Amino acid sequence: MFSFKVVAESGTTRARAGLLQTAHGAVETPVFMPVGTLGTVKSLSPEELFDCEVGIILANTYHLYLRPGCEVIRRFSGLHNFMHWDGAILTDSGGFQVFSLAKLRTITEEGVTFQSHIDGSQHVLTPEKAIEIQICLDADIMMCLDECIQYPADRGNAKGALELTTHWAARCKQTWQEHPDSAGALFGIVQGGMFKDLRAMSADALVEKDFSGYAIGGLSVGEPKDLMFEIADFTLPRLPDAKPKYVMGAGTPADLIELMALGADMFDCVLPTRNARNGQMFTKFGTINICNSRFKDDPDPVETGCRCYTCQNYSRAYLRHLYMAKELLAYRLNTIHNIYFYISLMKRVRTAICEDRFNEFRKEFYIEREHI
Amino acid sequence: MFSFKVVAESGTTRARAGLLQTAHGAVETPVFMPVGTLGTVKSLSPEELFDCEVGIILANTYHLYLRPGCEVIRRFSGLHNFMHWDGAILTDSGGFQVFSLAKLRTITEEGVTFQSHIDGSQHVLTPEKAIEIQICLDADIMMCLDECIQYPADRGNAKGALELTTHWAARCKQTWQEHPDSAGALFGIVQGGMFKDLRAMSADALVEKDFSGYAIGGLSVGEPKDLMFEIADFTLPRLPDAKPKYVMGAGTPADLIELMALGADMFDCVLPTRNARNGQMFTKFGTINICNSRFKDDPDPVETGCRCYTCQNYSRAYLRHLYMAKELLAYRLNTIHNIYFYISLMKRVRTAICEDRFNEFRKEFYIEREHI
Repeated sequence: MFSFKVVAESGTTRARAGLLQTAHGAVETPVFMPVGTLGTVKSLSPEELFDCEVGIILANTYHLYLRPGCEVIRRFSGLHNFMHWDGAILTDSGGFQVFSLAKLRTITEEGVTFQSHIDGSQHVLTPEKAIEIQICLDADIMMCLDECIQYPADRGNAKGALELTTHWAARCKQTWQEHPDSAGALFGIVQGGMFKDLRAMSADALVEKDFSGYAIGGLSVGEPKDLMFEIADFTLPRLPDAKPKYVMGAGTPADLIELMALGADMFDCVLPTRNARNGQMFTKFGTINICNSRFKDDPDPVETGCRCYTCQNYSRAYLRHLYMAKELLAYRLNTIHNIYFYISLMKRVRTAICEDRFNEFRKEFYIEREHI
Repeated sequence: MFSFKVVAESGTTRARAGLLQTAHGAVETPVFMPVGTLGTVKSLSPEELFDCEVGIILANTYHLYLRPGCEVIRRFSGLHNFMHWDGAILTDSGGFQVFSLAKLRTITEEGVTFQSHIDGSQHVLTPEKAIEIQICLDADIMMCLDECIQYPADRGNAKGALELTTHWAARCKQTWQEHPDSAGALFGIVQGGMFKDLRAMSADALVEKDFSGYAIGGLSVGEPKDLMFEIADFTLPRLPDAKPKYVMGAGTPADLIELMALGADMFDCVLPTRNARNGQMFTKFGTINICNSRFKDDPDPVETGCRCYTCQNYSRAYLRHLYMAKELLAYRLNTIHNIYFYISLMKRVRTAICEDRFNEFRKEFYIEREHI
């Protein structure tokens, strides 16, 4: 059911355009996946996601496992039907949240025991269970369970975590192979902290196991930007070009441009959705904060020329009014614009790659941002 | 621009079906007007209101005067354009909120001085200003400034308030007549507390002044239901049948049925919207609370057979999940259903009146509610 092919490559960078085929439709890459933690991209309906030309969203295994739980979602034959979304879904493994949100973690070779951040109840997540939950969610793309380390981490910790991640990846693949009925693909996650040799070790070990695609985890965790790009620049070419390459958790529009130049195909990030709820709107001229009093009676849309529902129908003045009054519609209208901005940025990049003018596009992108 | 005609009357009650013509479209009566306090029906887009077949909404003069202020809305030539709503708008006069929300009120014959509940700033609302603000908002139906009294109120207070309301109504009409360019109609508001003779005095004085329509204020303010119906029953027939009759602030679905039987044509109430945000959903079998654990894995819609967007696409289990997780989409999906329920109730009543089977409809309505 799952396939990936590269359809165009930038002549001057490693940027590339591709096509992902999933059990829930084809997805053009580079692609941005809005975050739908609990089976909803906060404030948006599935129809609004389609209108924004979103083809794939990310959902969080850890959160959905705790609420509403697999048994509920199984009754609906998976998350698509439960949440009324026909597009593709990538689920993370739950690892990141277990290591960032849950309480009282105990990690062993077997798996990780943790307490729910909601009610303190105790749970065990093993590589096998992570895959079984994702199969229950009917994910189109599943992720292997990985051990996520904090930044900064010393070499010993980074090495230990990547070795565990590598062992767990083998068990994840084993479990995945035992469910040939599942239509989902399985991606491995490269760890190794900020150490290039460890990243190489992690990437090589995963590639040997042959996954449907590869993600780079452990970036955008607080490290300097230069270091993020350096590790991505080192790691991405070690992953097979015939497979999709996913940089997890990145980033700003400029981050995405640079990571695409380095060969990344897939992205997820809370920035467009979370910032929308904080009044921060992305435009090609940079970000604006809709609270700003200069927008008080501004009849212009957030971004002149933008084709999103929000910009086509509402002024900055109205959006500011809604936001200042804490009206629920504010979060939604802001989110629609930001998601549309991210999605259309990816589409513009893709077109530029296909027309072999990625570098020109990148230059224009930075020049426009100086004109806010 | 404004007209009203009765198109059918129930043979056994005072219920009637009518047609309101406004500057922003025709509206069939009996009609329910969702409350859009700050220029937004909380959580819904205008398109969703249209999909629910809403033809007219209510907006609050007091709130919009304070935020974003008339100067902002004037730049957009009125509230319709500002909020992207092409249907009709009825604005209250601001009186109710001045008397319920604002701080440090001083009432004189001239008007009322009050402090904003938001920032404590001091403002003066006179009958003239109330109309000028509503004209600035480009309301299709404006309301006269009235003095709202608390329940219970003694006869002296009720009489004083109705006399002031009557004087203010004359000044409101005077100001309204000085703006022949305004396309909006002007309604008078009957006061008089729970005293029939005072209600008669108020109604007669207003009718003598000849307004486009008449509202009954000061009901649904905490009095027993029987008393509300008694006062409505007494007051509605004293208002001219050729004009629309609006009972402000009512009520539950059953309240509306009974008030329609007494001859009321127009209603507004926060119940469908506010209750939606509290997880309370209206169905023809009565209300359900979506939080209830029995809905945990319930694949049925809120109301089987309901044609609203929510019921057509989402299960009780998903709505419960969203609500328990405090997801923004919960408030919206719940609100869509409740608004649709109220609107379709009015449509069903109207059809029943036109087919002269209002009493049969009323009986069925109560029988269905026993089957939850």
